[in-house]
Amino acid sequence: MATSITPPRASIDELTHSLLASYRAIGGINHVDGKSLPSKAAIGGVIQSILRLLFPGFLGDHVVRSGELEVETRALLASVQSQLEREIRHSFEYAPPDGATREDLGRLAEDVTAATLAELSRVRELLQTDAEAAFAGDPAALSTDEIIVAYPFIEAIAVQRFAHELYRRGVPLIPRIMTEWAHARTGLDIHPGAEIGSHFFVDHCTGTVIGETAVIGNHVKMYQGVGLVARSLSGGQALRGKKRHPTIGDRVTIYANATIVGGETVVGSGSTIGASVFLMQSIPPDSLVVYEPSGIRMMSKVRTEAMLDFQI
Amino acid sequence: MATSITPPRASIDELTHSLLASYRAIGGINHVDGKSLPSKAAIGGVIQSILRLLFPGFLGDHVVRSGELEVETRALLASVQSQLEREIRHSFEYAPPDGATREDLGRLAEDVTAATLAELSRVRELLQTDAEAAFAGDPAALSTDEIIVAYPFIEAIAVQRFAHELYRRGVPLIPRIMTEWAHARTGLDIHPGAEIGSHFFVDHCTGTVIGETAVIGNHVKMYQGVGLVARSLSGGQALRGKKRHPTIGDRVTIYANATIVGGETVVGSGSTIGASVFLMQSIPPDSLVVYEPSGIRMMSKVRTEAMLDFQI
Amino acid sequence: MATSITPPRASIDELTHSLLASYRAIGGINHVDGKSLPSKAAIGGVIQSILRLLFPGFLGDHVVRSGELEVETRALLASVQSQLEREIRHSFEYAPPDGATREDLGRLAEDVTAATLAELSRVRELLQTDAEAAFAGDPAALSTDEIIVAYPFIEAIAVQRFAHELYRRGVPLIPRIMTEWAHARTGLDIHPGAEIGSHFFVDHCTGTVIGETAVIGNHVKMYQGVGLVARSLSGGQALRGKKRHPTIGDRVTIYANATIVGGETVVGSGSTIGASVFLMQSIPPDSLVVYEPSGIRMMSKVRTEAMLDFQI
Repeated sequence: MATSITPPRASIDELTHSLLASYRAIGGINHVDGKSLPSKAAIGGVIQSILRLLFPGFLGDHVVRSGELEVETRALLASVQSQLEREIRHSFEYAPPDGATREDLGRLAEDVTAATLAELSRVRELLQTDAEAAFAGDPAALSTDEIIVAYPFIEAIAVQRFAHELYRRGVPLIPRIMTEWAHARTGLDIHPGAEIGSHFFVDHCTGTVIGETAVIGNHVKMYQGVGLVARSLSGGQALRGKKRHPTIGDRVTIYANATIVGGETVVGSGSTIGASVFLMQSIPPDSLVVYEPSGIRMMSKVRTEAMLDFQI
Repeated sequence: MATSITPPRASIDELTHSLLASYRAIGGINHVDGKSLPSKAAIGGVIQSILRLLFPGFLGDHVVRSGELEVETRALLASVQSQLEREIRHSFEYAPPDGATREDLGRLAEDVTAATLAELSRVRELLQTDAEAAFAGDPAALSTDEIIVAYPFIEAIAVQRFAHELYRRGVPLIPRIMTEWAHARTGLDIHPGAEIGSHFFVDHCTGTVIGETAVIGNHVKMYQGVGLVARSLSGGQALRGKKRHPTIGDRVTIYANATIVGGETVVGSGSTIGASVFLMQSIPPDSLVVYEPSGIRMMSKVRTEAMLDFQI
Repeated sequence: MATSITPPRASIDELTHSLLASYRAIGGINHVDGKSLPSKAAIGGVIQSILRLLFPGFLGDHVVRSGELEVETRALLASVQSQLEREIRHSFEYAPPDGATREDLGRLAEDVTAATLAELSRVRELLQTDAEAAFAGDPAALSTDEIIVAYPFIEAIAVQRFAHELYRRGVPLIPRIMTEWAHARTGLDIHPGAEIGSHFFVDHCTGTVIGETAVIGNHVKMYQGVGLVARSLSGGQALRGKKRHPTIGDRVTIYANATIVGGETVVGSGSTIGASVFLMQSIPPDSLVVYEPSGIRMMSKVRTEAMLDFQI
């Protein structure tokens, strides 16, 4: 097949001019002469330093001694502060708050950076409860140490809880770049806007999606492939800022691949949602929602040989 | 438990000889004295340059000025051309078209490289519609810029649309290596053979699979975990080249974790498929396919304490 | 919104002292003055060398000649042995077997390393059957070479089969760090404890989860999003070591997003499980388990305009 093609030979000159014409003609996916955007690579570096600050001694390549902890912590903080402040300033320059001058933006970046870093201790309080919940809920785990070293969940939730602090303060772009960094590594896609209580755990992570306006109580456990998502309405961008994703009470368990839809949908505390359930309505506390077993058909292949290829 | 094992002590010499014997005895997973294979690392580098050509100014670490755009574009194109041509030549040497001589292969690689790079402008036209669709469909997005910088979808679809141009021209191995590069980073597995219309969007990406012979219309929106897959028949390799994956019309929405199976299955334009639906038959235009709500059972845990552990 | 925030300005000094206080107050997520943990980065390097030993000639950047194969193999083995032994020693020091002295641990690490590397040939025998099964089952594949170069599955199963050898010998932490390395790259999460027969294949991989005590027969094929998982019972850590995940017979096919739950659940040989099925009970050999087609509701949107926004 390949040999039958007689493609147009194009020189680098021709290719260059054709692409430059495309850059002039097709907008929206160029960023030439534009404002600075925050750098994905720099933000990746910031996240890795933040993770070392949140879980001291776990993520470096040597044992951290208490005698050197203060020096290491101070150095990491100083480096994170200057890098994060620069990326936040770029973000505010890209999408400035109404009426802000260029000087405002510099001061705003400085203030937001300091305020967010001041939340690290509170974020750690929550992460401790997450590590506890993961250990309590997974008999395959040897210790909370194993969870911090090996489980994708703890990395994803740490990044989301930190990104949420930037999101709350109105920083554009960076919070989402941070959670997508974690999404790419763990398969767990938690929007930085989601409000998540203590003792949270998502086992296996891959494919679980938690939308921007979801609200999750304490002691909630989920499995892989769960979606807390919005209805796909004609509204589109007009729905920005509206509550579009579900509210989950306390002590709720949601099994693999269940999808819960809509901003008014409330899952009452103490409820359990079975695997692959598609839920579009609120349910009262202490509910159990599962497939009707009669919704599944079992048959012997021996007697159904003829239909087998048709069926599956 | 570990201490009870008394393992055989083996020296490096013994281990080496045992492995070499295994290399001689077990074929199919060795590649010794074989033809050159295309290099995954080199192809990863090519993809990153292609992405910079498709979305100028977004993916580097500095603001691109229009005055330097021509110089940068020409340099990137020249580097991509020589690297891509070398990998394509290796691929054709690995699996030559019928009757091709070694000289044919060199010229073929040159021609296919030039022809594919000449498609970059047309690929950009489609990607602009994808970025528009993603922005229109997601109230969490601030701008198309945010979509290009932060959303995994745009990277995956850009790689697939470019790899599809190589696939159409019969290049072996490389198209699939490219889409697997994107699959590993985004969780979205689109085979390079799939034919995809304009204004496509997959929200959240993770776990969505689109098979080799799938055909997708314009303005189609999908969510995470969707499968457009083949029946698993006894045919196996005998089915190569046959249409095995579904056809999706225009303006179709497919919710999370729905699976649509088979090469003759057609989803009519304007239809909506609910979450977790398993569809093995064609449906007419403007259909809505959802679970029967009666297929889900809700009950109060308070009254079902006894069965709870059994149920879930 | 952002401008209305007047955050506390905190100096690096204040931030440092606040974090150090947090390190003292919040335990369980610190690892200061602790025992050495195995290094994730070093283990990543070991895995990449192991993969080159398992699939000679495929993963380097040059063609491997038979004349140089012995020298290359010996060098790789020597380097893997010393690195792996060091990480295993750290793991045993972290969680020593009952009554082991420090000298015991050094010798144990040496013995386990040698015993595990001596299994490489046997692991290769199984991987050859996996590559065969992947090729036989996927008409999109050109050759087993393409499967080894481009398919995420073969990387994930190779890492799991090797990690399983460490797991069987009681090595803490490392087996799970290895399978999570593969999980992050492929989306396929197979616990190192799972026992998996020959000719195994998971197509597309993303989101499939196989738990610690799962047992899988020969010639089993799965798709993306499948879960072989445990019930989430109040038992938690008390269930450690118990059989909690399903047993799958020979020649079983499990379609996308199906979830099979529980340690006593047995899927009989020759059975097929349809997409999105949630199975909590054993089924006899040669069963076909699918949704009841009546569990899906199809309707025309034209006649249901009013309910559409409500429904989805």
